[in-house]
Amino acid sequence: MTSTDSQFDPRFDLVLDREIDVPRERVWAAWTEPERIKQWFTPAPWQTVACEIDLRPGGAFRTVMRSPEGEDQPPTVGCYLEIVENEKLVWTTILEPGFRPARPGAPGACHGLAFTAVITLHAHGNGTRYRVVAMHPDEESSRRHDELGFQDGWGTALDQLVALYRN
Amino acid sequence: MTSTDSQFDPRFDLVLDREIDVPRERVWAAWTEPERIKQWFTPAPWQTVACEIDLRPGGAFRTVMRSPEGEDQPPTVGCYLEIVENEKLVWTTILEPGFRPARPGAPGACHGLAFTAVITLHAHGNGTRYRVVAMHPDEESSRRHDELGFQDGWGTALDQLVALYRN
Repeated sequence: MTSTDSQFDPRFDLVLDREIDVPRERVWAAWTEPERIKQWFTPAPWQTVACEIDLRPGGAFRTVMRSPEGEDQPPTVGCYLEIVENEKLVWTTILEPGFRPARPGAPGACHGLAFTAVITLHAHGNGTRYRVVAMHPDEESSRRHDELGFQDGWGTALDQLVALYRN
Repeated sequence: MTSTDSQFDPRFDLVLDREIDVPRERVWAAWTEPERIKQWFTPAPWQTVACEIDLRPGGAFRTVMRSPEGEDQPPTVGCYLEIVENEKLVWTTILEPGFRPARPGAPGACHGLAFTAVITLHAHGNGTRYRVVAMHPDEESSRRHDELGFQDGWGTALDQLVALYRN
């Protein structure tokens, strides 16, 4: 058992759980290589126009999204917490690189939302069972993330990933 | 270089840096074994009366302090982020076990303070160079931690550790 296997709490957490026709090594590459992230991470017509990745616990990713009107947003930053190649990726919006606490509501914290994302990949036939759990501190922030379009946003991004990397 | 080596920021961070006459293996044991934590972690006449430790990234420690008047405080919880035996221990007050974001101001978050503690131990003769950096999100929370007695509190606790475990 790893650190986050038994932590799911339906009051506080949002889940996207799908079987996709993409081998998990390709899903892992899509999540951990900047040039690939830029291809799928943001639902069109929005784009990800910049991405840096420092893939280690305490390292971070930093992405910049561009609106359909061409306006770049403040960077989104997530600090990696747990990295198990091809299996599991855990990151949080509430820490900056080097594990420094992020300022509450800082623009780098994804829409000001405090959450930890746990992405798990299980081999499933030739594809992957892909599961994202977004863990929040309380019901209110979970509901807010839901209203901001968690299912739609993460689901559409995943559709884009599948379209690019399917078997 | 590990994740937190180059992150020190004098505007946001507090430091305790001392050479102590305790081998670093004993300092490590004092930090990671519940029965030892209870002996030194809280400046007398306060006491630590309970301690649980789950020593892995995403695990946590939970301590209960008792006031001189015999009143138990809400538990203090810290989530481990990086563990290098006998060398480095990193934990944060802003995550709960399993990396879930803590509720801001929750009683488990050490006095409501958002910080990440980086404890590094370097062998120094027969003793240890002992360094704690408390990283905060901004100047205000760093100042507040300072006013709450960071130097005195951490310094006095360290004196207690040294008295118990010195060469």
